[in-house]
Amino acid sequence: MDNHRGKSIRLGVAGLGTVGTGLLHLVEGHAEAIRTRLGVSVEVTGVSARDATRDRGVSLDGIAWFDDPVALARSSDIDVFVELIGGEEGPARAAVEAAIAAAKPVVTANKALLAHHGTALATQAEAQGVALGFEAAVAGAIPAIKTMREALAGNAVSRVYGILNGTCNYILTTMQADGRSFDDVLAEAQAIGYAEADPTFDVGGFDAAHKLALLSALAFGTQVAFDQIRIEGIEAITPSDIEAADDLGYRIKLLGVAVQTEAGVEQRVQPAMVPKQSAIAQVAGVTNGVAIDADQAGSVLLVGAGAGGAATASAVMSDIADIARGQAMAPFGRPASTLQPYVRAPAGTQQGAYYLRLVVHDRPGVMAGIATHMGERGVSLESIVQRRPRSALPGIGARDETTDVTTLVLITHETREDAVKPALAAIVENGYTAAPPQLIRIEKL
Amino acid sequence: MDNHRGKSIRLGVAGLGTVGTGLLHLVEGHAEAIRTRLGVSVEVTGVSARDATRDRGVSLDGIAWFDDPVALARSSDIDVFVELIGGEEGPARAAVEAAIAAAKPVVTANKALLAHHGTALATQAEAQGVALGFEAAVAGAIPAIKTMREALAGNAVSRVYGILNGTCNYILTTMQADGRSFDDVLAEAQAIGYAEADPTFDVGGFDAAHKLALLSALAFGTQVAFDQIRIEGIEAITPSDIEAADDLGYRIKLLGVAVQTEAGVEQRVQPAMVPKQSAIAQVAGVTNGVAIDADQAGSVLLVGAGAGGAATASAVMSDIADIARGQAMAPFGRPASTLQPYVRAPAGTQQGAYYLRLVVHDRPGVMAGIATHMGERGVSLESIVQRRPRSALPGIGARDETTDVTTLVLITHETREDAVKPALAAIVENGYTAAPPQLIRIEKL
Repeated sequence: MDNHRGKSIRLGVAGLGTVGTGLLHLVEGHAEAIRTRLGVSVEVTGVSARDATRDRGVSLDGIAWFDDPVALARSSDIDVFVELIGGEEGPARAAVEAAIAAAKPVVTANKALLAHHGTALATQAEAQGVALGFEAAVAGAIPAIKTMREALAGNAVSRVYGILNGTCNYILTTMQADGRSFDDVLAEAQAIGYAEADPTFDVGGFDAAHKLALLSALAFGTQVAFDQIRIEGIEAITPSDIEAADDLGYRIKLLGVAVQTEAGVEQRVQPAMVPKQSAIAQVAGVTNGVAIDADQAGSVLLVGAGAGGAATASAVMSDIADIARGQAMAPFGRPASTLQPYVRAPAGTQQGAYYLRLVVHDRPGVMAGIATHMGERGVSLESIVQRRPRSALPGIGARDETTDVTTLVLITHETREDAVKPALAAIVENGYTAAPPQLIRIEKL
Repeated sequence: MDNHRGKSIRLGVAGLGTVGTGLLHLVEGHAEAIRTRLGVSVEVTGVSARDATRDRGVSLDGIAWFDDPVALARSSDIDVFVELIGGEEGPARAAVEAAIAAAKPVVTANKALLAHHGTALATQAEAQGVALGFEAAVAGAIPAIKTMREALAGNAVSRVYGILNGTCNYILTTMQADGRSFDDVLAEAQAIGYAEADPTFDVGGFDAAHKLALLSALAFGTQVAFDQIRIEGIEAITPSDIEAADDLGYRIKLLGVAVQTEAGVEQRVQPAMVPKQSAIAQVAGVTNGVAIDADQAGSVLLVGAGAGGAATASAVMSDIADIARGQAMAPFGRPASTLQPYVRAPAGTQQGAYYLRLVVHDRPGVMAGIATHMGERGVSLESIVQRRPRSALPGIGARDETTDVTTLVLITHETREDAVKPALAAIVENGYTAAPPQLIRIEKL
């Protein structure tokens, strides 16, 4: 990395979407300030993208164009390779591996690539003595990686959790604010560009899971284990759930949670209830939030823009600045060879309280039967109430006179999922329910 | 710093209060994890404190004792000097300067020292090529320094603000929750150790101002200018103000705010109203919060423990880890020689809305007279209401029948302090008021 000590750091940027063009704008607009700060200039000397003719609103004058990102990665005219192509395989992976093989530091925003190949890529980067920065891969502008890798170096982390997907948080926040359905808000989010035409990757929780896999490895010093994450999306959340949560003092958020337990690590992405007055409950709209519970530092919460060209480019620049200052830290903050094999905690054994919403046939004995099934599995109930939607007229309960069904909301005391789920199955089996039950964990903050 | 590449980083720790003993516990308890992470051991080889005989609940076996912190700072048996003595002059300053002169990296939690001598000490450290880490000097475990110095390297920051003093936030939060007076809650805070016997340094805003001076320098690349901060404490905040704020949708927080304006930098520590539903309003009790408005990253908010032995030791360890990894970054993230002379924005010229509480004589024409004085200075009012305390009986207003005074609460539209203050002075001059008026800025978030 001797060339970084010279006058200029030359970037090769592969991928010119919103983040790539955001980075070009940032580097150009802040050139003087960056030079003052770092003592070297940062300039983009090569780019690669699919279409050389497209107008991206940014000048490419004097920048070498590469049709092949792998050729850019290997070019002797760049000092740092910036991968903003995306995707866990294909050109992104090939180019990152080529850059590392050529002993060039890599900065990437590619969470899918790292969630699938993070341990291997870190190992390769360390063998070559080059940095592999991925601040931009998790929660946009929020310095989640730097905080976990560096600021909490003297801590044992017991849990990391967060709101890691802006699309989901926008949908849930809007459903809550306006009392609208998931489908309705999703359609709006698609119209304004907050959600993709195929929204599965976001609303199904997969994007959040990619990020959680990286946070989890940083938190516990384990190999990246994306395929060990339990993933549940927000598609089944209804306005009734959000309304009931509000009445009970909660907000529903899609949380990614990784917990260190005695039996291993538990990683899950799922809708969860968090206390309304908690700081993370205030994280609204497309904003992200990452919380870390550490033995020395206590709880640290980081909130900010989780996506967007400029915000993500800011995180890319954070990694570039570290490289310019001569850092070549192990990507996960410790040698990749010391990352422990991932041990998955047995499913369902973690303590937690739950919210259940049941649409049941309104017959004598149903409430007693449900309570009995819960009791038999050792699940004790904090409350069981027949729920009246806010929209109902005064004096009219949740009982639907025309269909003979009613809605019950149950809150359990601390229990285990492997107790509450069989109880729920038995209740459904018994024919009490008239619709699929809803089960949402109440996250202890 | 070649000795850092060896087997062990030897710390000399001056000051064995809660942070110093917290650091010794951390280094001992996490020795193995730290070695794995950093590739070198970290050990405490020398300490200095006032009383060698005191039992601090931590073993000093095998650690050299120095009566004189300056001698410890110069000792050839330490690689890094950790200054946890405190105070802007005296032994702390002498020892830090001695360590730098001996080309030893320094880590300090001493906000007073840096607020007064930060630019000079950074210049000295850079001249010697050693690090001067002060993550622990601002907001405890919150990685505020690292975020501003490194993560936001590609940003222009327009404002940094935060809840920087846990004592004040505890007092205000408790006043709000319990409806109790400042004096009452302060006495309790003193009893449980959240406030000092002489609380002036905390409740008067000086501690927050020390931290703000450092954040401001990092944010705007200016020389540290503690003596240019306008400082106002929380002593004059009453339960009526907190109650009125609540009704208006606000919380009162002691905020440190630094803003870049076209005419210079504005730094102030003062009680301010923030929207109840904002994330920073949820920062409760002794917790701290730091928010940064940056042109690329957007708004980033960091929340966590602002004080305490373990939390502050965590921040100290963050700096030690950076040093162990071979970093010797400029303390303010850019060469001290490039820090610009501080230009103070003209007082009172910044736009803002204000809350005013006036205890006035209940006479005809008073409300009209007040509105007229405001109008004459170009201050337009969003509302002016005669305020009824919650504790009053239904139907009984704020009018005190026995004393012939009543309370008015005014909310201005955006205006300037140099308009609202003269208007207020004229109102007092005119004899309308029966008690000193209260003026609180409504911070735009």
